[in-house]
Amino acid sequence: MKHGRISYNGAVHQVTEDSGRVRLADGRLLQEGDFQWLPPVEVGTVFALGLNYADHARELAFKAPEVPLVFLKGPNTITGHNAKTRRPADATYMHYECELAVVIGKTGKNVAKADAMDIVAGYTVANDYAIRDYLENYYRPNLRVKNRDACTPLGPWLVDAADLPNPGALKLSTRVNGKTTQEGTTADMIFDIPTLIEYLSSFMTLNPGDVILTGTPEGLADVKPGDVIETEVENICCLVNTIVDDQTWFAPV
Amino acid sequence: MKHGRISYNGAVHQVTEDSGRVRLADGRLLQEGDFQWLPPVEVGTVFALGLNYADHARELAFKAPEVPLVFLKGPNTITGHNAKTRRPADATYMHYECELAVVIGKTGKNVAKADAMDIVAGYTVANDYAIRDYLENYYRPNLRVKNRDACTPLGPWLVDAADLPNPGALKLSTRVNGKTTQEGTTADMIFDIPTLIEYLSSFMTLNPGDVILTGTPEGLADVKPGDVIETEVENICCLVNTIVDDQTWFAPV
Repeated sequence: MKHGRISYNGAVHQVTEDSGRVRLADGRLLQEGDFQWLPPVEVGTVFALGLNYADHARELAFKAPEVPLVFLKGPNTITGHNAKTRRPADATYMHYECELAVVIGKTGKNVAKADAMDIVAGYTVANDYAIRDYLENYYRPNLRVKNRDACTPLGPWLVDAADLPNPGALKLSTRVNGKTTQEGTTADMIFDIPTLIEYLSSFMTLNPGDVILTGTPEGLADVKPGDVIETEVENICCLVNTIVDDQTWFAPV
Repeated sequence: MKHGRISYNGAVHQVTEDSGRVRLADGRLLQEGDFQWLPPVEVGTVFALGLNYADHARELAFKAPEVPLVFLKGPNTITGHNAKTRRPADATYMHYECELAVVIGKTGKNVAKADAMDIVAGYTVANDYAIRDYLENYYRPNLRVKNRDACTPLGPWLVDAADLPNPGALKLSTRVNGKTTQEGTTADMIFDIPTLIEYLSSFMTLNPGDVILTGTPEGLADVKPGDVIETEVENICCLVNTIVDDQTWFAPV
């Protein structure tokens, strides 16, 4: 089953997918445009992987990491499907990153690889935008690169883990204004999902609602105001986001 | 005024300080031992500064940063006054860090230095423990160093900003089992509070409940299970924490 969260009629609702449409818990089917998408889960800690695809590490001229290179993303960065994300006027290079997002469903500490998938609730899609200007080196995807407001669209759907038995072999793709610019497969992750869960839970507790953004393959490109970015992971969903400039972002509404 | 948050009689209460005692909103005075301390605010994004005191940077054999070196701390790390923090059995060096914590009280974006103090709600004390084993380099206070469960005690009191007009000249000190091991002053920060607020709000929005841990001066020392660590900032409060080993941490209760 696919689950979503929306803002509708002044309240937050949990919804499910029904033949491509959005169904409220009371059975009503909604039209796109009648509601706003929220991220499919209320997120706890959001982890993001740096350089978790070897081709992408080469693309940035970094060596592939020997242990997972993980950083945190703040709550200000998270937004839903069909939202807008600002390209700051002073940025010279802003790129998308299509990523498989793993949502934790059960508390886990010292979880062995073999048991790791048992604590996964499901999967969604993330677009982990970066302002590359400030990407100083391998170790420092610093806050100016990765912690801008609304720079991490997430959703629209959370797919139950049971419905996606092989998350390690899914196609990822990005389209900019309808043209495909990024293609890859989760099979190319350097550290796969069980390895990431084992690693993180070895030194801290993972909790329901925690989200792991598992990294992006090569194929990045600069995005400009007005661009419509579609990031899609096979059998999960397609996440749409629009880039806007400072004038649009800060305009009175 | 000094504000705190406690768990008492099955509920979370906001309390105030009254001649060194804890007062509930309905006027009752409580005895230590009748309640548990919680962090004085429900935290939003928690920022931590790396190497924000030149003497501490030297102590770790790193050069002082030219722009603020900021990383995020996850919600799993936060705990209150008088809590226990685990020293993992496989760590060879775990040290305390006494820090002035700045609590944001108003939303701020592109806040100029001159206006920065207007968005500060108040101040509390943090102990930003580190597992130094994994401190690979200047750029990477990675998750294994700084994101362990309960590795960021905070509190007990939040002092109103109005009651502390000069947060840039406060003594910091740490005592391990009663013996002073760290002394410094917030006057030695490389990037002061207005500079940090201007910097962070230049690329993201600061929100009420966000907390900035402003870094620590030199004087770090390894801590062992059983050690009682007191981190104190002048005119704010003294935060007490006890180090425990794996057996104690994971023992059935």
